Amino acid sequence: MSQSIYNFSAGPAVLPDEVLKIAAEELQDWRGSGMSVMEMSHRSKEFLSIAEKAEADLRELMSIPDNYKVLFLQGGASGQFAAIPMNLAGQNDVADYVITGSWGKKAFKEAGKYLTPNIAVKADPFTSVPAQSNWKLSSGAKYVHVTPNETIEGVAFPFIPYTGSVPLVADMSSTILSEPIDVSEYGAIYAGAQKNIGPAGVTIVIVRDDLLGKARALTPMIWHWADKAEAGSMLNTPPCYSWYMCGLVFEWLKSQGGLMKIAEQNTEKAKLLYSLIDESSFYNNAVAKEARSKMNIPFTLANPELDKTFLEEAKTSGLVTLKGHRSIGGMRASIYNAMPLEGVKALINFMKEFEKSHG
Amino acid sequence: MSQSIYNFSAGPAVLPDEVLKIAAEELQDWRGSGMSVMEMSHRSKEFLSIAEKAEADLRELMSIPDNYKVLFLQGGASGQFAAIPMNLAGQNDVADYVITGSWGKKAFKEAGKYLTPNIAVKADPFTSVPAQSNWKLSSGAKYVHVTPNETIEGVAFPFIPYTGSVPLVADMSSTILSEPIDVSEYGAIYAGAQKNIGPAGVTIVIVRDDLLGKARALTPMIWHWADKAEAGSMLNTPPCYSWYMCGLVFEWLKSQGGLMKIAEQNTEKAKLLYSLIDESSFYNNAVAKEARSKMNIPFTLANPELDKTFLEEAKTSGLVTLKGHRSIGGMRASIYNAMPLEGVKALINFMKEFEKSHG
Repeated sequence: MSQSIYNFSAGPAVLPDEVLKIAAEELQDWRGSGMSVMEMSHRSKEFLSIAEKAEADLRELMSIPDNYKVLFLQGGASGQFAAIPMNLAGQNDVADYVITGSWGKKAFKEAGKYLTPNIAVKADPFTSVPAQSNWKLSSGAKYVHVTPNETIEGVAFPFIPYTGSVPLVADMSSTILSEPIDVSEYGAIYAGAQKNIGPAGVTIVIVRDDLLGKARALTPMIWHWADKAEAGSMLNTPPCYSWYMCGLVFEWLKSQGGLMKIAEQNTEKAKLLYSLIDESSFYNNAVAKEARSKMNIPFTLANPELDKTFLEEAKTSGLVTLKGHRSIGGMRASIYNAMPLEGVKALINFMKEFEKSHG
Repeated sequence: MSQSIYNFSAGPAVLPDEVLKIAAEELQDWRGSGMSVMEMSHRSKEFLSIAEKAEADLRELMSIPDNYKVLFLQGGASGQFAAIPMNLAGQNDVADYVITGSWGKKAFKEAGKYLTPNIAVKADPFTSVPAQSNWKLSSGAKYVHVTPNETIEGVAFPFIPYTGSVPLVADMSSTILSEPIDVSEYGAIYAGAQKNIGPAGVTIVIVRDDLLGKARALTPMIWHWADKAEAGSMLNTPPCYSWYMCGLVFEWLKSQGGLMKIAEQNTEKAKLLYSLIDESSFYNNAVAKEARSKMNIPFTLANPELDKTFLEEAKTSGLVTLKGHRSIGGMRASIYNAMPLEGVKALINFMKEFEKSHG
């Protein structure tokens, strides 16, 4: 991101300045290879070194246990909405879906093509995460699907569900790498890269070994987790350049001190913004306090007629992509790892000034 | 590509120097937007302008008729191997596959999950394209699938098949944009970008309007051609940066004079290389002359024990990624649009010298 603006896009989203600088410097000639990473055969030793380092760094950052495979796939989280039932269940099986926002709802809908999804619980409205004691889990479910951070509504799980021997599957697109997590609590974790990792076009799947080999016959080759794992994600040509960019972000995260450190920064950034909202009667966030996302912070103005002016004046101040998702309106500030504290402070200052002049 | 080496990779493959230079210059800040293209919301006016221009330029370059949709998808040609039967046929339908190389064989195999594929004809060995009079087309086939250029074996169709009212579907991954074609002869054309267009991670589908709306219920959302067309390829987050890179390549092609001009250059490059091979008893290309690819030129040495030395010495001379596909061995020079004439001449000079010293 240029220092002249702060980009609050929910995804594709801001990337670290340092990462973009390296990418620009290496774009035409990767480290004396005479080639751009975009031009490298995915089977070349140069690209394999990039791919392997990216995976190793991700494993280190997230402390991924050895009995989990890491896949770099295509098709986004939306692709995995289909790939998950295909890989984990048969057409006549049941899986449980916990719906706490728009993305969980979409995952549920897509799963309906490939099995019988059961709504274990659905928050209404999407402003909280129902306690697990209120979920209705099915007996015989092949997995339980959750969305630990709902990007549109800004709703985050304040707890890790316990599903016993039933694999817990989590769409972590907008929260992966924002804080340390215990991967061993999950059967599978997946994430589109374009929120908290890298550019759109690569999807990361982290899956426990014992869940491989259950794919139905009709699973498309490019989403067959076991075959992909066997081939080091190279059964077909992977999205090489996006994979490389993810690797640069992983290196940056390590240079920042890892996930414990980045989580402290994320907590501080979110606390500052929520404090402003809570102390004001001009701004409002509707999410239950314990379920508030640290990544995506939606808020409304007391007078929605001011929305347009807010967005225009914010843009003039170099604060862009603050419009809320079209499905719920209002504003949304996405403050992923790459959003610096200064960006959040600039937004807060702007919001205070805006309230003064329009409140 | 750096001027210090020539990269003959079959894909991901060489990109034009001019394109990489622009990409490097714009990487951190796209045209004063303060953002990298990688950071832009896919729904921002900036990215929409990039996406729309890329499509318009592709339509202009290929003279795509108005009754065809252009989609920018994820998953590669290998993904479309599954998506094609899903979009065009039911599980109990039949489709015809013309197999002239390894990729057509893979397409046929994947299709077998989603319908009953019929081998209309299979070349044996993969060194020619059987005349259409020898094909056995099925009555009631939902489409006829061909691979106009087989990347591994270097076999290209010397004719456009005529399939009457049955849609002709073509995997043009390694030949798209290499010469003018009459799009109206095809029901659907698809191509992974990483050979003759841009970086790996984006797949282009060009499909006639009347073939939309036939997708089966189990088609994954991200590959549902009609829904994707309706949403301007943005039903889910597209691979934005790869789409942008494709757009830069399209602009470059226009600046080169378009496809008629690029086809002349491609013909000249291929002619020079085949001439050397044919005039020598040291090198050999096994493909029937009328079916020789202008994009991928596999060749063998009379003495295969020299293969390793050839590759090592070629690399020392700055000629890289000349190893043939692991399934057939030998050498392969992929000379896509972005390979300059000088690169082919450098290869030819090297081959002559190598023959002198080792022949």
